Amino acid sequence: MAETDDIIEPHIEEETEHREASHESSSFLECVTPPEREGHSITQSSHRLLAYSDALISIIATVMILPVAHTKIEDTEGLRQSVQLLLTTKIAVYLMTFLIVSVAWAAHIRLFQVIVQIDDCLALLNLAVMMLITFLPYTFSLMATFPEKVLGMLLFCGCVMVIGFFQALIVVYAFSHPFLLNEQIQISKNQTFYKHHILKVIMRVPIMCLLASIFSFIFFQLSYALLALIIFLPYFSSAFKWCRSKALGQVEETDNSMFFYTYLPNEPLSKERVEAFSDGVYAIVATLLILDICEDNVPDAATVERKYNGSLFAALQSYGPEYLAYFGSFATVGLLWFVHHSLFLHVTKTTRFMGLLNTLSLAFVGGLPLAYELTHEFPRHSRNELEAIQISCVIIFFAGIFQLAIWVVALFKEEETLHPYVRYGGREHVFMLVKLSLYPCVALGTFFLTCILSKFSAPIFHLMEITVPFAFLVLRLLVRVGLALLRLVFCPERPDLRTVAEEEHKPSRVPFSALVT
Amino acid sequence: MAETDDIIEPHIEEETEHREASHESSSFLECVTPPEREGHSITQSSHRLLAYSDALISIIATVMILPVAHTKIEDTEGLRQSVQLLLTTKIAVYLMTFLIVSVAWAAHIRLFQVIVQIDDCLALLNLAVMMLITFLPYTFSLMATFPEKVLGMLLFCGCVMVIGFFQALIVVYAFSHPFLLNEQIQISKNQTFYKHHILKVIMRVPIMCLLASIFSFIFFQLSYALLALIIFLPYFSSAFKWCRSKALGQVEETDNSMFFYTYLPNEPLSKERVEAFSDGVYAIVATLLILDICEDNVPDAATVERKYNGSLFAALQSYGPEYLAYFGSFATVGLLWFVHHSLFLHVTKTTRFMGLLNTLSLAFVGGLPLAYELTHEFPRHSRNELEAIQISCVIIFFAGIFQLAIWVVALFKEEETLHPYVRYGGREHVFMLVKLSLYPCVALGTFFLTCILSKFSAPIFHLMEITVPFAFLVLRLLVRVGLALLRLVFCPERPDLRTVAEEEHKPSRVPFSALVT
Repeated sequence: MAETDDIIEPHIEEETEHREASHESSSFLECVTPPEREGHSITQSSHRLLAYSDALISIIATVMILPVAHTKIEDTEGLRQSVQLLLTTKIAVYLMTFLIVSVAWAAHIRLFQVIVQIDDCLALLNLAVMMLITFLPYTFSLMATFPEKVLGMLLFCGCVMVIGFFQALIVVYAFSHPFLLNEQIQISKNQTFYKHHILKVIMRVPIMCLLASIFSFIFFQLSYALLALIIFLPYFSSAFKWCRSKALGQVEETDNSMFFYTYLPNEPLSKERVEAFSDGVYAIVATLLILDICEDNVPDAATVERKYNGSLFAALQSYGPEYLAYFGSFATVGLLWFVHHSLFLHVTKTTRFMGLLNTLSLAFVGGLPLAYELTHEFPRHSRNELEAIQISCVIIFFAGIFQLAIWVVALFKEEETLHPYVRYGGREHVFMLVKLSLYPCVALGTFFLTCILSKFSAPIFHLMEITVPFAFLVLRLLVRVGLALLRLVFCPERPDLRTVAEEEHKPSRVPFSALVT
Repeated sequence: MAETDDIIEPHIEEETEHREASHESSSFLECVTPPEREGHSITQSSHRLLAYSDALISIIATVMILPVAHTKIEDTEGLRQSVQLLLTTKIAVYLMTFLIVSVAWAAHIRLFQVIVQIDDCLALLNLAVMMLITFLPYTFSLMATFPEKVLGMLLFCGCVMVIGFFQALIVVYAFSHPFLLNEQIQISKNQTFYKHHILKVIMRVPIMCLLASIFSFIFFQLSYALLALIIFLPYFSSAFKWCRSKALGQVEETDNSMFFYTYLPNEPLSKERVEAFSDGVYAIVATLLILDICEDNVPDAATVERKYNGSLFAALQSYGPEYLAYFGSFATVGLLWFVHHSLFLHVTKTTRFMGLLNTLSLAFVGGLPLAYELTHEFPRHSRNELEAIQISCVIIFFAGIFQLAIWVVALFKEEETLHPYVRYGGREHVFMLVKLSLYPCVALGTFFLTCILSKFSAPIFHLMEITVPFAFLVLRLLVRVGLALLRLVFCPERPDLRTVAEEEHKPSRVPFSALVT
């Protein structure tokens, strides 16, 4: 079977490349010269609509961290107990909201992979969907705060059902104006079949919500199980399929006609939209702290006069930890963005499973405002401060480790998903590995250091934040020297260092073009 | 002179088109296949870095509305007086911050029109600049709250100077790695000249800030005048030049070698980045209210038990006005985005002056959270509620009128800036005019209605919010019917309605391609 795979693979790869190339060129035409390409001036490229939707959804996904971050923790009680209390409700609400909104976003991607052109009516329908999606976190937090009341559940399910209704409306409208559709569907003869299939997939979630809301009157627990099923169904079913295919040794039925609207984990997500969504999350997380600072930390003129004898400098000095926390938070989020950016620069196809890992990484990034809110809130050298720093390290660690996981998963199918430079043996492979593992390693190291040197915890943490950016700058140098040393030690018969260095400096267009042709 | 212009114009237009086409295709290569194009794998397309910067800057620009919107106004005092009090400091701070951040953003655009490729080092330097830009609003609000203290001014000027230093570093670094630069500069022989010119322009602002901070110790008022000069200098100088050229009848010296880094109002801004920045502002404004709702309006379990006898429904009913305000706000912001989107779909080039008008429109859009915070805060049928609604109408009116102004300005040079469809006599011209003037007209109408029917003010306002989306849907129909009627009345010898209708339904590819060739 492995042999067959090897024989088939180059062909598949070619096909994929061809499809992607054609898709890219068409998306280029769409995004750059929208009105010049289409004769029908009332249709428009969906590019900007999708960018705006991505921005809205990414902000909404990270919103629920605010109630967590702004929870006041009394100094008297231990942080660990308070965090346990928080964990039970608010943090769980935050993580679940993030996942729910991500599921809605994934559905939005799938929908607009079928509908590639929009007109005014579709734009307005999409805005209605957006309005309801932005309301989802609120209904969910109501449901979580009052788990025993029926109303919260009903509101949430009602919201999901109305979203489903509007999505169905979008599909029906688009299929009645076929020039809005994907070319592949536009030229196919069984459009009605596609329409019914897509409608069936879209209506699955609202119908389960309808069932859940009916059951909420009869048997409460069942409706929660149904809701949990909705969110994880795609991943469960695909994991199940994968296990079965491995166990029975079956070749998966790759039904090409059903390429759209399946839940296969190999199905490509739009890389552009994954990037836009991630950018939105990183941007709002980086600025959440400055939002607070701008609102709360401008001292009152009267207070300055009374408390600090009119010295503004003294008044601002008392906010010192806030500033430090802000710069630390911004640097960390910025660098995590930088790692993400470097990774996705070399990713050529994003599978659904990579999308899930990306969402998990982003969910932890969204937890960073909580971490920094905690680190600057407690008095120096208290037990709470230590634990706050450890929580920060854990959050940073998981945010980094899931980024690394994206890369590891991508390496399993490197021919499809990665650029040659970062595949095994590629010239950037080691450097990318080091880049991706820098934050998890630093976070882990800081965590253990704070356990040992409990007295110096805060200085260590701030040192970590400040040194990491410089670490990125010297990293490339270190990796190159390390590789050169390894080569020198293990393969002394290879071309000597000077030629390697020269090769590095050459524009190296030739080997790459040779690789393409 | 008019004749000369006419003769020259087609040539200029062609040139512009050619330049834009080449720029578009290169940006396509950059954004879609970044690693495949360049041999040097360490350089990267700047596309995503710029998108992330746009997201950060747009969030920061709208941040300062939060302290305004969250100011508690006592019910006892009249709203008009409180608003006047607010106006003197916080609203002025908000508007000024928006302008300052926009100036920083415009400088960022100009810089990355010269530097089109990035590498790791530039990405990190840019993140440092971003961190400082996001800190600007805070220092400015300190300066505005304590105008008589030197520290605020010093902090602000210090921040600007450090930003200037990092920008200079970016320029020096990029010119020492010429493959990062714009192709036009890359092939030119006097790179050093360009470098010095750009450095000179960049250092102008920090040096003025240095002067301002020195003067702040000696003569306070002068330093404020200097700061005001910094922000408005580009517009003053270009307005002055324009007036002089009109007065003296001179032809403007179009120094082609100095195409980069001038402050000419005709200089094109990157349309893509204007759109991304606008999207960010609209997205954050649309979600600012839900941020508040998610944080504040989830009732406490204990409160519900005590105050509402355990009825969650009753507890949520008391939040009714908040929900209404949220949906109203989202619908208004969404539709203003929709109008903006429709307009920029047909804009082919964005001049600096159109950019300024766009910024002003966005500044008023950013004021919408304040408006909605006000409308739901006061008891029904109070004088304050009426005034809050009037303030909302004024804000919406100005947001809409500046959008209309963008179009009017674009029409003055329609050959360069607009798509043929929306120029005078184009098939979409009237429709675009109606679309753009809908919100100003409705806001104005609602304003006068609230003056007359002071008792029904709140219902009228909500009616307006709900009917406007539907108005957009029937608008096209109305415009078409109106045009047909006009034709029937004034030009009965024209082809009759049926053929017009048929033409509308044809794909109409033929006339368009004829127009292009």
